[in-house]
Amino acid sequence: MEPGDTARPGPGRAVPALPPRLLLLPLLPLLLGRGLRATAAASSSGAAAEDSSAMEELATEKEAEESHRQDSVSLLTFILLLTLTILTIWLFKHRRVRFLHETGLAMIYGLIVGVILRYGTPATSGRDKSLSCTQEDRAFSTLLVNVSGKFFEYTLKGEISPGKINNVEQNDMLRKVTFDPEVFFNILLPPIIFHAGYSLKKRHFFRNLGSILAYAFLGTAVSCFIIGNLMYGVVKLMKIVGQLSDKFYYTDCLFFGAIISATDPVTVLAIFNELHADVDLYALLFGESVLNDAVAIVLSSSIVAYQPAGLNTHAFDAAAFFKSVGIFLGIFSGSFTMGAVTGVVTALVTKFTKLHCFPLLETALFFLMSWSTFLLAEACGFTGVVAVLFCGITQAHYTYNNLSVESRSRTKQLFEVLHFLAENFIFSYMGLALFTFQKHVFSPIFIIGAFVAIFLGRAAHIYPLSFFLNLGRRHKIGWNFQHMMMFSGLRGAMAFALAIRDTATYARQMMFTTTLLIVFFTVWVIGGGTTPMLSWLNIRVGVEEPSEEDQNERRWQYFRVGVDPDQDPPPNNDSFQVLQGDGPDSATGNRTKQESAWIFRLWYSFDHNYLKPILTHSGPPLTTTLPTWCGLLARCLTSPQVYDNQEPLREEDSDFILTEGDLTLTYGDSTVTANGSSGSHTASTSLEGGRRTKSSSEEVLERDLGMGDQKVSSWGTRLVFPLEDNNS
Amino acid sequence: MEPGDTARPGPGRAVPALPPRLLLLPLLPLLLGRGLRATAAASSSGAAAEDSSAMEELATEKEAEESHRQDSVSLLTFILLLTLTILTIWLFKHRRVRFLHETGLAMIYGLIVGVILRYGTPATSGRDKSLSCTQEDRAFSTLLVNVSGKFFEYTLKGEISPGKINNVEQNDMLRKVTFDPEVFFNILLPPIIFHAGYSLKKRHFFRNLGSILAYAFLGTAVSCFIIGNLMYGVVKLMKIVGQLSDKFYYTDCLFFGAIISATDPVTVLAIFNELHADVDLYALLFGESVLNDAVAIVLSSSIVAYQPAGLNTHAFDAAAFFKSVGIFLGIFSGSFTMGAVTGVVTALVTKFTKLHCFPLLETALFFLMSWSTFLLAEACGFTGVVAVLFCGITQAHYTYNNLSVESRSRTKQLFEVLHFLAENFIFSYMGLALFTFQKHVFSPIFIIGAFVAIFLGRAAHIYPLSFFLNLGRRHKIGWNFQHMMMFSGLRGAMAFALAIRDTATYARQMMFTTTLLIVFFTVWVIGGGTTPMLSWLNIRVGVEEPSEEDQNERRWQYFRVGVDPDQDPPPNNDSFQVLQGDGPDSATGNRTKQESAWIFRLWYSFDHNYLKPILTHSGPPLTTTLPTWCGLLARCLTSPQVYDNQEPLREEDSDFILTEGDLTLTYGDSTVTANGSSGSHTASTSLEGGRRTKSSSEEVLERDLGMGDQKVSSWGTRLVFPLEDNNS
Repeated sequence: MEPGDTARPGPGRAVPALPPRLLLLPLLPLLLGRGLRATAAASSSGAAAEDSSAMEELATEKEAEESHRQDSVSLLTFILLLTLTILTIWLFKHRRVRFLHETGLAMIYGLIVGVILRYGTPATSGRDKSLSCTQEDRAFSTLLVNVSGKFFEYTLKGEISPGKINNVEQNDMLRKVTFDPEVFFNILLPPIIFHAGYSLKKRHFFRNLGSILAYAFLGTAVSCFIIGNLMYGVVKLMKIVGQLSDKFYYTDCLFFGAIISATDPVTVLAIFNELHADVDLYALLFGESVLNDAVAIVLSSSIVAYQPAGLNTHAFDAAAFFKSVGIFLGIFSGSFTMGAVTGVVTALVTKFTKLHCFPLLETALFFLMSWSTFLLAEACGFTGVVAVLFCGITQAHYTYNNLSVESRSRTKQLFEVLHFLAENFIFSYMGLALFTFQKHVFSPIFIIGAFVAIFLGRAAHIYPLSFFLNLGRRHKIGWNFQHMMMFSGLRGAMAFALAIRDTATYARQMMFTTTLLIVFFTVWVIGGGTTPMLSWLNIRVGVEEPSEEDQNERRWQYFRVGVDPDQDPPPNNDSFQVLQGDGPDSATGNRTKQESAWIFRLWYSFDHNYLKPILTHSGPPLTTTLPTWCGLLARCLTSPQVYDNQEPLREEDSDFILTEGDLTLTYGDSTVTANGSSGSHTASTSLEGGRRTKSSSEEVLERDLGMGDQKVSSWGTRLVFPLEDNNS
Repeated sequence: MEPGDTARPGPGRAVPALPPRLLLLPLLPLLLGRGLRATAAASSSGAAAEDSSAMEELATEKEAEESHRQDSVSLLTFILLLTLTILTIWLFKHRRVRFLHETGLAMIYGLIVGVILRYGTPATSGRDKSLSCTQEDRAFSTLLVNVSGKFFEYTLKGEISPGKINNVEQNDMLRKVTFDPEVFFNILLPPIIFHAGYSLKKRHFFRNLGSILAYAFLGTAVSCFIIGNLMYGVVKLMKIVGQLSDKFYYTDCLFFGAIISATDPVTVLAIFNELHADVDLYALLFGESVLNDAVAIVLSSSIVAYQPAGLNTHAFDAAAFFKSVGIFLGIFSGSFTMGAVTGVVTALVTKFTKLHCFPLLETALFFLMSWSTFLLAEACGFTGVVAVLFCGITQAHYTYNNLSVESRSRTKQLFEVLHFLAENFIFSYMGLALFTFQKHVFSPIFIIGAFVAIFLGRAAHIYPLSFFLNLGRRHKIGWNFQHMMMFSGLRGAMAFALAIRDTATYARQMMFTTTLLIVFFTVWVIGGGTTPMLSWLNIRVGVEEPSEEDQNERRWQYFRVGVDPDQDPPPNNDSFQVLQGDGPDSATGNRTKQESAWIFRLWYSFDHNYLKPILTHSGPPLTTTLPTWCGLLARCLTSPQVYDNQEPLREEDSDFILTEGDLTLTYGDSTVTANGSSGSHTASTSLEGGRRTKSSSEEVLERDLGMGDQKVSSWGTRLVFPLEDNNS
């Protein structure tokens, strides 16, 4: 392996291996640029003495103006593409067509426009008025050029392979619609990933947290190495057959394994949502796909960073390997910390100020803080996208509870729109890229090999892990669920963004083309086959969530008065055990009662007893959970004025509302750990349970349904009703 | 006058007079750029043969990485600045402090950070590793440089004045926080302006449309020429005194008049909103400020485009003058048309599809269509910002009525957040720019002259126009209103964005500095003095809108049954006369009954009878308003399936709900123009009036209050209640 080669400037023009900051971002100058046209027009005529200079500037101006016009037109193309997608998807939803998801549709339209641009527009002559200028030294980031006494500043855009220099005949339009790959990573992915984190269905997510983490971390690593090794075999085969014309190292194969392990079952999940399929399966799939995106990003960076010392770069180097592992752990934990910290800061700010009286300010603050996570992580050298994911989860877990009802729906809707636009943009760009991207390397053997490898990798990921997980889970993950998870290994935006990020070498170009085809196939075929598959596998659909929640609501009321007829007898050996509101004889038979290991149980109790009281208005007062000798500290930390005096009702209320994931725990541990004060606390709730039933059950409904499905907004706005009464 | 000079590249580095598309956008690479670091790290070590090349790349990489980190930090600075502003403004609102608006606060924080950056950070040595390279030809937009056999591509960034070349010692941080001026025009202004258009309070706006247009067009032109001429006098004076070191032409003065005539009474209007000051005064001020932004942009472009032919560039050239006028009219009407057309298209799409079942799709479509206006206008060579303004107005007038209740609040909230962030960003940047901008030209005489000139210009704008308007208005604009309008001539984001757009020449730099100081002064001093001024001028505050609307509601109910006890006797000579719901003896005494000229009355009836029925689900059926011989056409245009069959209730309903601005007109002209069918139409409403009173009055309330004040969301969401009932 010669890692130096992977980034050596190859024939790549779209992604030269040069400092990314220096790449002229092709998307955003589109937004800018009308600019000084008028001024420049004035400058074009002038005093007679400056005629030639003015003429020059006039020419440059005209060129820039024309270029700006084309920029606007190309961005307009994408917007019209998205508009068309929206209208068609409305038609599909209207007619209840389920075989094609909006992302698949966006790809189809992208393909069509790509074909038109590729074959329909004339190949205009390149407008690169180039001038060669030989210099001896290394390439600088800035260049000063003296043109007849005037000095112009140039910035480095990238290296061009010598073969391309004379090839200035290029289709302008194709170049215009080719974006800098970093656009995906730094502009389009963050809102998608943040929205995913922010809309994790909390109760079902935390109930299956252990399994989700296992699938995401272990599973992705297994999948990455299996695919990597299989692909290395394929590459060896290609070398034997003589189909490989350039270098393709083992680390390249592992890199491919990493990027293609990021699953994105957006199509499947949309259908799950629509059909109200099993919520635990939904949680497993969604949680896994969200987290394995993060794992895949960091894994791919670590693989790229694997640099054996010395000349024998093919040999296994333990030091370099452990360095890679260290980089993985460092980047991952660093990004996680960044995200969690800004989430916690936002929670504290929203808790200790009365910002919730001004939803606009609150929403703006929320947006800014979430964005600052990305920048902070980037500034510290971590991965912004991963930080944003964990920030989203933290915001949903803590900050969300402190927001005003209005801001809850506002923030959700804001990120929902951003997510929707970004996702469909990426998918339509994918369709476009199949025809407009200039450096495709179609290798049938590699492509077939990759399809087989991802199938086997997914199988080696799901079945063995599920087997081991089932050993520890009380409610097993059934065979039909395992098959469905196996089937749902779609690839999407993240795999694409990782693949297009570097297409400088032959190997990377082949990977990019293959990734694109895998995304197309999985989104269209697997996405289209979801509904038949669900019925074939006998997976329960049509679980009307509101009614299910109504049941829970009833049960939760029982909890409130301390009696639950549907519930198992309370566990006698472990008071921290996590119980669910669902009965054990629930229709799925897949609910897990005691899946969480001791570490998660510890976390749950820590979260519930200390973090939630500190960061939100909910949970038991710290004065009851902390030992008595730190009573003063507890009072300080819990901001007594918020906690005891000003918002007693809200505090009491949310104690039982905002902890729906671990409601039983609330009950369980407040009877066990808290002695005097907690007892009275429970008693007071029992008395007031009847009175508050309506509003709190509404909030429970809203919180549970609101986190991540289409009912977000209707449920979100429902709660405004009391507010309206105050106004009129 | 030598217009060629105005754009000749001067000592300006921030705004070189070069194609704006080629300017490396400083804001957005920040977002990008982490990028290929890992890849590049891999590339840094490599095969032994490539050691030197790898070392080079390593150095470049390290530099880029460091630069990217600084980019993130500088953007983070702005975000923290905004966060701080939000928290402080919350504190101010919480404590009901009214003397400082959030924009003023943002400027203060910007100033503080600017001082810290300017004097607190060490002046690092410039990292421009520059290399001079002489070429004979003109400057090209792209440059190929041959470095030891490798070819690198450079793009033109801008011209540098010779004096600056050796001055590479620059504060990195100061450079990082200096944005490309086009960012303001192409990213930050559009959401602000669109939101302004979208939140025009329709009823009050259209009631005063004549006066608003007069103030915006005539007034801005008068103000521009008065200020321009006064400033020319000041410049002459400066020349005599010897305070002027460079050229300053008459067109420069006029340009200054144009940019400084864009008023932005955001502070005043916020206080009006909070104190519930008179709604007509609010409408006059807000409408004027929204429209005069558009006028000022186009006016300034036209002035720059004024190019007398021949060598004698100081002489008045009638041809050039008329060309400028033509450019003004062309750009303005073109942009207007673009905005109106996309608004109309959106209205048609939302009307003829059932997109309102899917609020997310609807919101996304709305956003995309509104954005496409900007791009379309830019692609056609018009002004995107102006197009976006008229698109916003059209969307509010037609599309808004077709949206689902959910999308109404979603779109409003989305643009509200964008507007809020963009506006506060601009104001904090202004504060920062006072210290970090490198080319300030403080000229005391010019600054004092400018303050006097804007005062006189505002006076010459308001008082004579009000006098002439009062000749035609039944309800005069009182002296106290005129004084308040005179007082409210604040300058804000638009003046700043126009001034910073071109700071290449000495004259422009002086203008920029002066504009900045004018904005500071007006926002802080005038903004702070609004509350005392209101009470000093005896302007009614504390008008509780809901109660006022309740009154209207009652009156409108009377309208519905055809009797209005509070109303004047129906006008007998003009059935198209525009009546208002307010009685003539309303508390203000300033309501106007018959202000609109015949052209506006014609427009009202055309809009109500033809446009609204075509574009929305409201208004009388076209079959009744069009002559009988085009009955077939009418049926086709009004989409019978929507109009007659599927949504009869909605159509009937909205007829009386969605035309609140011209409700009386509805009544008036349906009795006059429509013969048979309209009569029955009215009758049926009379019968059903009682039944629908509640829901329609709610909608009226919502529509009227919702458009542009703080109650937006609580009212907007109120209407979700019926929807929720369907769900649960």
